[in-house]
Amino acid sequence: MTPIDLRSDTVTRPDDEMRRAMASAEVGDDVLDHDPTMAALEERVAALLGVEAALWVPSGSMGNLIALYLHLQRGDRFLAPLGAHVLDAELGTAAWLAGGMPHALHSLTPEAVVAAGGGESPYYGLRTTLLCLENTHNAAGGTVTTADGHAALVAAARSIGLAVHLDGARLWNASVALGVELRELTAGVDTVQVCLSKALGAPVGSVVAGSSSFVVEARRVRKMLGGGVRQGGVLAAAGLVALDRIPRLAQDHANASALAAGLRSIGWDVPEPATNIVLASVPDLDKALLSLREIGVLASPMSGKVRFVTHGDVSQADITEVLRRVGERA
Amino acid sequence: MTPIDLRSDTVTRPDDEMRRAMASAEVGDDVLDHDPTMAALEERVAALLGVEAALWVPSGSMGNLIALYLHLQRGDRFLAPLGAHVLDAELGTAAWLAGGMPHALHSLTPEAVVAAGGGESPYYGLRTTLLCLENTHNAAGGTVTTADGHAALVAAARSIGLAVHLDGARLWNASVALGVELRELTAGVDTVQVCLSKALGAPVGSVVAGSSSFVVEARRVRKMLGGGVRQGGVLAAAGLVALDRIPRLAQDHANASALAAGLRSIGWDVPEPATNIVLASVPDLDKALLSLREIGVLASPMSGKVRFVTHGDVSQADITEVLRRVGERA
Amino acid sequence: MTPIDLRSDTVTRPDDEMRRAMASAEVGDDVLDHDPTMAALEERVAALLGVEAALWVPSGSMGNLIALYLHLQRGDRFLAPLGAHVLDAELGTAAWLAGGMPHALHSLTPEAVVAAGGGESPYYGLRTTLLCLENTHNAAGGTVTTADGHAALVAAARSIGLAVHLDGARLWNASVALGVELRELTAGVDTVQVCLSKALGAPVGSVVAGSSSFVVEARRVRKMLGGGVRQGGVLAAAGLVALDRIPRLAQDHANASALAAGLRSIGWDVPEPATNIVLASVPDLDKALLSLREIGVLASPMSGKVRFVTHGDVSQADITEVLRRVGERA
Amino acid sequence: MTPIDLRSDTVTRPDDEMRRAMASAEVGDDVLDHDPTMAALEERVAALLGVEAALWVPSGSMGNLIALYLHLQRGDRFLAPLGAHVLDAELGTAAWLAGGMPHALHSLTPEAVVAAGGGESPYYGLRTTLLCLENTHNAAGGTVTTADGHAALVAAARSIGLAVHLDGARLWNASVALGVELRELTAGVDTVQVCLSKALGAPVGSVVAGSSSFVVEARRVRKMLGGGVRQGGVLAAAGLVALDRIPRLAQDHANASALAAGLRSIGWDVPEPATNIVLASVPDLDKALLSLREIGVLASPMSGKVRFVTHGDVSQADITEVLRRVGERA
Repeated sequence: MTPIDLRSDTVTRPDDEMRRAMASAEVGDDVLDHDPTMAALEERVAALLGVEAALWVPSGSMGNLIALYLHLQRGDRFLAPLGAHVLDAELGTAAWLAGGMPHALHSLTPEAVVAAGGGESPYYGLRTTLLCLENTHNAAGGTVTTADGHAALVAAARSIGLAVHLDGARLWNASVALGVELRELTAGVDTVQVCLSKALGAPVGSVVAGSSSFVVEARRVRKMLGGGVRQGGVLAAAGLVALDRIPRLAQDHANASALAAGLRSIGWDVPEPATNIVLASVPDLDKALLSLREIGVLASPMSGKVRFVTHGDVSQADITEVLRRVGERA
Repeated sequence: MTPIDLRSDTVTRPDDEMRRAMASAEVGDDVLDHDPTMAALEERVAALLGVEAALWVPSGSMGNLIALYLHLQRGDRFLAPLGAHVLDAELGTAAWLAGGMPHALHSLTPEAVVAAGGGESPYYGLRTTLLCLENTHNAAGGTVTTADGHAALVAAARSIGLAVHLDGARLWNASVALGVELRELTAGVDTVQVCLSKALGAPVGSVVAGSSSFVVEARRVRKMLGGGVRQGGVLAAAGLVALDRIPRLAQDHANASALAAGLRSIGWDVPEPATNIVLASVPDLDKALLSLREIGVLASPMSGKVRFVTHGDVSQADITEVLRRVGERA
Repeated sequence: MTPIDLRSDTVTRPDDEMRRAMASAEVGDDVLDHDPTMAALEERVAALLGVEAALWVPSGSMGNLIALYLHLQRGDRFLAPLGAHVLDAELGTAAWLAGGMPHALHSLTPEAVVAAGGGESPYYGLRTTLLCLENTHNAAGGTVTTADGHAALVAAARSIGLAVHLDGARLWNASVALGVELRELTAGVDTVQVCLSKALGAPVGSVVAGSSSFVVEARRVRKMLGGGVRQGGVLAAAGLVALDRIPRLAQDHANASALAAGLRSIGWDVPEPATNIVLASVPDLDKALLSLREIGVLASPMSGKVRFVTHGDVSQADITEVLRRVGERA
Repeated sequence: MTPIDLRSDTVTRPDDEMRRAMASAEVGDDVLDHDPTMAALEERVAALLGVEAALWVPSGSMGNLIALYLHLQRGDRFLAPLGAHVLDAELGTAAWLAGGMPHALHSLTPEAVVAAGGGESPYYGLRTTLLCLENTHNAAGGTVTTADGHAALVAAARSIGLAVHLDGARLWNASVALGVELRELTAGVDTVQVCLSKALGAPVGSVVAGSSSFVVEARRVRKMLGGGVRQGGVLAAAGLVALDRIPRLAQDHANASALAAGLRSIGWDVPEPATNIVLASVPDLDKALLSLREIGVLASPMSGKVRFVTHGDVSQADITEVLRRVGERA
């Protein structure tokens, strides 16, 4: 029985088109000069996101880390939604390495932002300087913030003097789900990170973007962290192919919806997914994951639930097969 | 009109007995050797707290910081109650300097500790290693954790392998309010910090305590942070006098209770205080504080409310006068 | 006039064989599982180096950073030769991020190691815990430490309780120049970093290696820093090809020697190179580099001198042409 | 036999005048408000040093740490003379906590400053931003930098854009030895630290000083580090008395000179001291210190030599007695 891997959209393998692009990429030393394919990728992403400049990084974690490092002075407090990737899935670097004191917002509303971030006690002196958004929000089940919702949060942050970073690792999914341009979902932010390696299927890489002066400093911090690579054009070439795949995400969303509907029809507790992430509540998480694994369905734990993620290496037929296996076991 | 200062119990001034003790203290170089009066103070505090050893530090913030620094590897996650001093009132040092990724518990129960701190995703890898308690809990209004409640929290932490630090800046107040020995309230902790300069009235200093090996390392970290002092015996002498004052806190608690009752009787929204901190809910915090200041009543903002703190430099008569002034203004 | 690029051996471009290997690499998600080509590369490097385990990283800087981070407690002092890459070319991360207090050794001898690292003042308390070696030594002109010399330095470090990390970014060159196995040059070290992207010509990547338990922790720190990649097998495949190229370095060394001899014959001040790095003393460094650039010879500044680095994309004929251009200009 | 303690000038005990001042000091809460005696001390020191503002800190280490923290961005390189207190005697905090990459100058000349600090490789990107001076220079034997020498070093630093911090823990000694005003020795610096607890005999405390805006931020960092104290006026009162004692240092210098002369006359290898520190070269440091201890002469190790420090608790007669004991033993 071939396992069907729904643990994450990071598991996608590069296809032949991507591999051909990698094999024929024009390259240079991206630390000494600027690798031409890297440069092409970075320009194209900046244009898509509606910002001045962009920088390739080996991972979304590094993209977020660079942005937080540059936004935060040591000890600055920042706000992020409960369960945010920067809070729970980056090994604490937002705190000890970027230097920030995290404050988790249990409800991500403009009012909550103002209430949590406004005011500085002259006595305590803790300074809140940054709002970190995440769209789609992984831990909440791939939920989407609309362009209006985004604008209201940014406006709230601005009203109390906060900078805004957007963890947009799956911003492509939000854009496709909402049918809006990416730049509508980055409006007003200082910095944004998008991932080429999750839904879009590139083997390696994310991009962090913002103003030109931010990217100059970000290049330096990338080298600090050990993320400066030489002939990175071989990876950027795959990234350029990946960017052509954005429309394909509609299929992942349809597959997620079909999976959720199928699971509900056999009694599972599963809300309708907004994008490509399905979260199922189960009585015993470890047992549920193990039981799924036994029938060749790989899922992952997330926020105390079972997370299924659809992606480019999973077809409609695979979803049907998953439902068949789960149905049989039930 | 003489202002009555209820902003904090840190405002107490050393009295003649303390000053005489300071003036006649036997001293040595506490960095090169061990100042004898310092040593006496540290031994007495360790005995009171029921731990092996103790170390004087210039402030409660440094005591907490040293403990967190030694408990946490860079990136470790730690749990603390919402509003804890280490989260909100120490300028973010728990994160960038001690190296911890904070997670605020909205409800401090054994179940919440286990739910938040248990389990490590092999994928994410964030490690939760410490529970930081606070008794009394300042931001919650000087609330008290009982010996049983404390024991249950420590047991929960232990059950999932967490170390426990207790921010006991006002542990004296908890002890007096509950009528239990201090050591009952430190049972099972790895480290604890108590403050000589708040309720007890010493001009300067706190003590951080734990095992003998902890204190050896803590002495080194204290020097790192610049908290190693030379003839510190002059301050320790005041600390020794302060330790004799613990029973006096009952009067502060009675004064707080009288203040709360008086305010309620004229329509304020004030719950019964557990110790020496009275929190009053008001429609407009800034306006309320200013208005109080105009009638010579100094209070401070805390958790969005007006905080009044009773202490050794405030008498029963002062409380009566505060109520008179507030009543007149109403 | 085509420029001949002798700035660094990092400028090499992957050739067709490497590109084919990348295009056909078997891959997996190296964060969730272990990419099979990555695993094959890491095993092969560990075997070559004579250590238990190895971990791919995006750059030599990250490899060194991970090792230093894991060796050093915050504030620990470490020794490294004057001009070491970890001191001068990694943007200060050895200090603020790895947590180390650097001490540069002006003369790298066993006696100097013992003199600088031995003893701890109980008063000052600074702890020296690590010796960081570099072979070949870039800033010294690609100089080589012999197996005996290496063993004596390691023994000196051990005699005073220091751990040893070896920055072996160009250890391949040392091995070829000396005609000894790599493992003779790693004997006794705790950790070692080797680079696939410099002399060996892979587009991206280095490897950090040591004990199995070190590599488990290193994998975690790599993810912290943002160096965890997904289908990294595409890069590892190039690395495997690169490892077949070690013997080819003899040609780079011959080219460097020919370049040095040619320059000396027209009056330059150039010592005989030990490996692939030629350092030329010039009266005015900026002017010399500019003047070379005008005749299509690209070099870089290093230790106040002109550095020429030979590599796989530079042929014997290129060296002849460089000498012709320089000779004409003279 | 009463030991004569020449380990450090930190061992001085407060005398009756200081104790009386402490006992009668007017105090306030220096975190919430500004303790009046603290304020008076800080103003007087700022005036003496010729800078805008000053801040009391519990130790010289904290003063230096605050200054370095505020001068340095994480990863910035800074220059300091070999053996500087910030390099060797502050437990590595200049690196991991202040964030700086230290570079030790073996020869502290304007030319060496420019050579070491000038230029930034666009490739490496390490930024040198600070020169840290030390006057008198402890590890060099209390040597003095003249006003002219100081001005030349500051000018060299300025010429390449470096900020300047002066570790003036014993700047009083330099001023007295040279017969110049303190402000001549602080000319042009951004920040300076002076110690009340070494030569001047206060029990606890140093002062860090600079521009008014620096001191605002320094106050915040002091609280971060746990150095904010409450009724610190009791210590500041001793500091004010200590400032009256500056002229007395001439006697310490005369005593040091007499000690050096006496030791030389019985065959010791001792250069003439510039201030209150005598460094003696001995064949076996540990043995020499032990041997001295046996005859009741306490000294300390420094730069591989025996260090004797004269101070206010050591009289001319004590020096005579030291020489007698050493002479007898010889």
